[in-house]
Amino acid sequence: MTAPETAPASRAGLFISFEGGDGVGKTTQIARLASSLSGEVVVTREPGGTELGAEIRRLLLHGGHVSPRAEALLYAADRAHHIDTTVRPALERGAVVLTDRYLDSSVAYQGAARSLGAAEVRELSLWATQGLVPDLTILLDADPALARLRTADRGRADRLEREPDAFHTALREQFLALAAAEPQRFIVVDAERGIDEVAQEIAQRTAPALERVGRAGGGA
Amino acid sequence: MTAPETAPASRAGLFISFEGGDGVGKTTQIARLASSLSGEVVVTREPGGTELGAEIRRLLLHGGHVSPRAEALLYAADRAHHIDTTVRPALERGAVVLTDRYLDSSVAYQGAARSLGAAEVRELSLWATQGLVPDLTILLDADPALARLRTADRGRADRLEREPDAFHTALREQFLALAAAEPQRFIVVDAERGIDEVAQEIAQRTAPALERVGRAGGGA
Repeated sequence: MTAPETAPASRAGLFISFEGGDGVGKTTQIARLASSLSGEVVVTREPGGTELGAEIRRLLLHGGHVSPRAEALLYAADRAHHIDTTVRPALERGAVVLTDRYLDSSVAYQGAARSLGAAEVRELSLWATQGLVPDLTILLDADPALARLRTADRGRADRLEREPDAFHTALREQFLALAAAEPQRFIVVDAERGIDEVAQEIAQRTAPALERVGRAGGGA
Repeated sequence: MTAPETAPASRAGLFISFEGGDGVGKTTQIARLASSLSGEVVVTREPGGTELGAEIRRLLLHGGHVSPRAEALLYAADRAHHIDTTVRPALERGAVVLTDRYLDSSVAYQGAARSLGAAEVRELSLWATQGLVPDLTILLDADPALARLRTADRGRADRLEREPDAFHTALREQFLALAAAEPQRFIVVDAERGIDEVAQEIAQRTAPALERVGRAGGGA
C-alpha cells in the first residue's frame, strides 16, 4: 500500500515539518522562521490544518472513546486531505511550507504508547499522502518535565496531554530514534534553551536548504 | 498491512452483511430477517452505525469537497470503530449481526468510479477491522433505473445518490463481480420482485447458516 516517495527535486517549494512533544515550542519557532523568510510561506498544522481537518481534530481530541485503529485512520484522513488541498498546491506554487506536526508525530505517538505498530502507521500515512516526506524535519527536543511546565499555564489539557509522564518520556525517545534513522532529513535542536537561541540555530541549519530553492531569508 | 481473516468458527454469533446500490431494499429486508429471528439480533449500518460514525457520515455526505484518499480513510475509520465497539462485542455474545453495507460497498464504490484501486481499498478495510469478513453477504441485485424510481420519493438526494446513471450501472457490475469471486460467502438475490418474495428467498437461503449456530427462525 506504500506509494513511492516523492523526490524533493520534483517540487518547486520546500516542505519543512516541526516535530516534538507538547510544550517544546513548535508554534513559536515556526512563527520565527516564517517571519524570517521572503516570498510565499504557508504555515499549517496537523491535525486540523483544513476545515475538514478541524472537524476531525474536534472528534479526536474532545470526543469520547475512539478505538485505536479508528484513531489512526482519522489522523490519516486528516493528513490525506491536508496534503491534497493545502500542502501540495503550495509546494507546486513554490512556497515554503512549515507544518506543526506531520507523519513522524503519528509514528512516534503510536510507537510510544498505542496498540498499533509504528511501521503500520507509517505505511498508512505514506498511502494517505502518496508518499510525501518532508525535505527537512526540525525535531525540538526537550525534557518532558520542562515542556510540561511551559504548557501548565495554557489552561487546557486535551486528551493526549493528559497522558502520564512515562508516555512523554517514551515519546521523546521515539522521536530521537526516528531522527537517528534519517539523519539527512532530521535536524535535532536542543529546545531547552531560550527562544532566541533556538530560533538562531534553526535559521542557521535550515539556510542551506532554503538557499538551494532560492529562498534564503532576508529579515529577522 | 492485511490482517489474517477471522475464521467464522472462532465466533459465537453470525455476521451477515446486506449489500447493493441505493433503493434495492436493504433496510426493508434487514428488518424482515431480523423480525424472523429468535434470540439477540443486532441491526446496524455503515457508515454511521456508532456515535462517532454518525459524525463521520455527516462529514462524508453533507460536507464540502473531500479528497479521495481522505474519503476512503474516513470510511475505514468509521468501520474500524463500528467493528470494535459494536459488531465484535455482539458476535462474542452470540448475537446475529445484520449490517446495512460493509466492506464490499467500499470496494464496489471505489471500483466503479473513484480514483483509487479497489484492491487498496479492500486492504485498508481489512486493516481497519483486523480482517473481519462476514459469514454471509446478501447482495440485493436490481436494475439501477428501477431502484432509482423507488428512492425518488424519499425526498433526499445526498452526494452519492446524485452520481450519474453510468455510475450506478458500473456499481451493480462491481457488486456482481465481487459475488462471483466469493460464491461461498455471497447470496445474490433478485431484488426486482416484491418485498415478500425477496424476504422469503433470503429466509430460505440464510436458514442453513442460522441453523448451524442454533439460530433458526421461529417467527414471521
